[in-house]
Amino acid sequence: MHKIRPHVNCTSKNMKNGTPRPANVRSARARKTNFKVASDGRASRTYFPFRYKAYLDAEISRSDKFSGCGASPSFSLRPNMMKEETARDNTNNSESEKTPQVANDPPEEDIVDPWLVQASSNKGIDYDKLIVKFGSERIDDALLHRFEKVTGHKPHHFLRRGIFFSHRELQKILTLVENGTKFFLYTGRGPSSEAMHLGHLVPFLMTKWLQDVFDVPLVIQMTDDEKFLWRDLDLEDTYRLAYENAKDIIAVGFDINKTFIFSDLDFVNGEFYKNVLRVQKHVTFNQVKGIFGFDESSNIGKIMFPAIQAVPSFSSSFPFIFGDKKDVPCLIPCAIDQDPYFRMTRDVAPKLGFLKPALIHSTFFPALQGANSKMSASDENSSIFLTDTPKQITKKINKYAFSGGKDTEEEHREKGGDCEIDVSYMYLSFFLEDDEELEKIRVQYSSGKMLTGELKARLIEILQELVGGHQERRAAVTDDDVKQFMKRRSLNF
Amino acid sequence: MHKIRPHVNCTSKNMKNGTPRPANVRSARARKTNFKVASDGRASRTYFPFRYKAYLDAEISRSDKFSGCGASPSFSLRPNMMKEETARDNTNNSESEKTPQVANDPPEEDIVDPWLVQASSNKGIDYDKLIVKFGSERIDDALLHRFEKVTGHKPHHFLRRGIFFSHRELQKILTLVENGTKFFLYTGRGPSSEAMHLGHLVPFLMTKWLQDVFDVPLVIQMTDDEKFLWRDLDLEDTYRLAYENAKDIIAVGFDINKTFIFSDLDFVNGEFYKNVLRVQKHVTFNQVKGIFGFDESSNIGKIMFPAIQAVPSFSSSFPFIFGDKKDVPCLIPCAIDQDPYFRMTRDVAPKLGFLKPALIHSTFFPALQGANSKMSASDENSSIFLTDTPKQITKKINKYAFSGGKDTEEEHREKGGDCEIDVSYMYLSFFLEDDEELEKIRVQYSSGKMLTGELKARLIEILQELVGGHQERRAAVTDDDVKQFMKRRSLNF
Repeated sequence: MHKIRPHVNCTSKNMKNGTPRPANVRSARARKTNFKVASDGRASRTYFPFRYKAYLDAEISRSDKFSGCGASPSFSLRPNMMKEETARDNTNNSESEKTPQVANDPPEEDIVDPWLVQASSNKGIDYDKLIVKFGSERIDDALLHRFEKVTGHKPHHFLRRGIFFSHRELQKILTLVENGTKFFLYTGRGPSSEAMHLGHLVPFLMTKWLQDVFDVPLVIQMTDDEKFLWRDLDLEDTYRLAYENAKDIIAVGFDINKTFIFSDLDFVNGEFYKNVLRVQKHVTFNQVKGIFGFDESSNIGKIMFPAIQAVPSFSSSFPFIFGDKKDVPCLIPCAIDQDPYFRMTRDVAPKLGFLKPALIHSTFFPALQGANSKMSASDENSSIFLTDTPKQITKKINKYAFSGGKDTEEEHREKGGDCEIDVSYMYLSFFLEDDEELEKIRVQYSSGKMLTGELKARLIEILQELVGGHQERRAAVTDDDVKQFMKRRSLNF
Repeated sequence: MHKIRPHVNCTSKNMKNGTPRPANVRSARARKTNFKVASDGRASRTYFPFRYKAYLDAEISRSDKFSGCGASPSFSLRPNMMKEETARDNTNNSESEKTPQVANDPPEEDIVDPWLVQASSNKGIDYDKLIVKFGSERIDDALLHRFEKVTGHKPHHFLRRGIFFSHRELQKILTLVENGTKFFLYTGRGPSSEAMHLGHLVPFLMTKWLQDVFDVPLVIQMTDDEKFLWRDLDLEDTYRLAYENAKDIIAVGFDINKTFIFSDLDFVNGEFYKNVLRVQKHVTFNQVKGIFGFDESSNIGKIMFPAIQAVPSFSSSFPFIFGDKKDVPCLIPCAIDQDPYFRMTRDVAPKLGFLKPALIHSTFFPALQGANSKMSASDENSSIFLTDTPKQITKKINKYAFSGGKDTEEEHREKGGDCEIDVSYMYLSFFLEDDEELEKIRVQYSSGKMLTGELKARLIEILQELVGGHQERRAAVTDDDVKQFMKRRSLNF
């Protein structure tokens, strides 16, 4: 368990009231703010924890110290990081310290581990402290400039807006690319539900972009075994979900000639299993206890599982892709809550004669109700699902997206909306690619010139297009396509 | 860790001296006893812990209480139970409580777990207490009578001589057979060395006989993963040894149409892996700690491994053999030190809707130096290997087999030899099938009529034939044969 004591001291000049509003007044409030208010035109502090200045309008006044006080997007790579209320241990083994805490009862310190992300403040996770705690490095302007220089590509807006904000050895990957050395990408998903939401899409969008930019092979692990070990699900369920979710992943547009998707239940064997054993031999119970918070009552599947998530980092786990090359470097795009797995992996790798994987870490995707609210699979109104109709998207955004607008049009026109806590604005920052338009919206909304209704209307338009396009592409994915992506085969490498 | 407090109180009338001889004087003594001594003709107490009276000469005086004071054969199913000095944890994780103890420093109580068997007394393990401790049942006369009635076969001499002495639900298996229901056999080997010895052969001889008698399928697990996790061996080593050892196993004469041999490194996947996960989900660290003595510094591979050894007990792990039949009963012949794995398996099975496996347990095969001495892979003189030449067999038996004969021919003729501690006699009881001849030897040796040299000469003859025959059959086993035995396929069932 990684508990971060943020000792948050929010002093943003645009925050009139640092006190969190009780969760139960939020949705009512969200419905009320769809009207016009006066503007004072002043710039709001951006909510991005680590914004790449060179790619955003430099006019905005901005705190030099990146503070987690900024409302935090809260998506994650795998659904077990969805902050679902069912995400904690619900097998026969209790891990009492991981009982989900309700939004009104925040923990004393931020909790970020692969099974629970919970902010101690209504401003969300303090990512600055998380970097210190985890020992990773910030993706800063200098690194992004180098990224552009090496790749010839303007960094993706997830990078320039600080949504992917932290890394381990991304520098090294860039050096390899400069030297003409190939690497491979590895990401994954834990298939615990049919319904993937917008947050689940984010790491795959990032990964696809990286695959296109670097022209490298990609392996995608579906941890159906993990979901079985942690959830009250049968193997038949998680296996079926792995295949269903694979269709959504394929619909993102991955290149079949460069992408291998695998279900652990299908794939754990041979060289992969051998690497699992190699990792397991070098990791003790004390170590996984320290890293993941397992205890004596944890089941032995959970205890061994970290090795399963570790080994796709090693090219020798995929001989049909990499032949006998055991030293192909790996870059893992993932949400920061997955870092414990890869800290362990990086610790073990040298002992096995393998390379440490490099990582880039994202922040979390926020629930409609706000950055420190939980997305719940049982509450369809906590997020936009990839199966939602245009009408559902309109309704959810208008009705549930927590607003940073003021209580009356008059007040809003006068004081402006608060982008730091406005979920619609956060969602725009994820999915509106045009920096200029986003900045214009930010300035206008913060100044009170733009009203919540207008902001939401633009978001609805973008999400309807995004989700509609996804649904079209997903409908075109056949069972045979899935089989092809999941077939052990050589890739263009 | 299973520590058995025997509080041994040996009162055999034929034991003049209950005090163990120091180990370092034994081999010298073994060399000295090959001469003639006077006989008093009295019957010796048999060394078998649990002898099936109906199949042995009823004339022999015999203690009613089966006492572990009897010198105990000490073979075991898997080589990690060879009592080798290297058999303990020699990976990076210390399990200090399992440090091998030298013969001169016996533990206060018997230790019997899958990685160490050590007797607290020079008389070997107290099997009577072990049955109580483990909660298994004795294979008694009544059960063997029923066995003969149901199968129409006189029980194998391993059964009638109490070498397989304990069971769990063998009654149930016999009832199934009476009702015409088929079951399957499961046994295994941990391939940690090229050199298999006589003790390794014993469970396979028993299993082959059972396969012939019951006409049932057999699965044989080669735990190359386990050997890697516990020993200072590479996966490449244990994998190669699995194939080499498979040749010795095939040479025992298993029916290729009814036998599937598998290496875990090859075979852990699919339905097998799914069952592994099912078991792992229902077993906690606390449980494996209690059963196997793991601690917080144990590697997570060891912690998860018991599930790998458990799941061949379930027919659903082998869909290519049993189709969709998930309820085919299983009988496991193994050395008693493997029982912890299957106690765990039997505990978990009902939670998964699977049948509990039945078991028959053997005692241990003794080292040449005696029942409480360790067989060591690094000491080729501690056992007869299946690769030994006739000359080596002659030399080893004559030079190293601990003798129960007396120090002078005169004394031997007068007082007789002690079959309870005589390793050559113990070996004869394993490999001389003729009950009458064995009993004649026992009576003559115990009375002093037969001398150690004569006893050893007969053993040498038998072992040369046994080992020579094995070598011939093994030489005929081709790589293709191994592939055929290890191919996933349907079996006659």
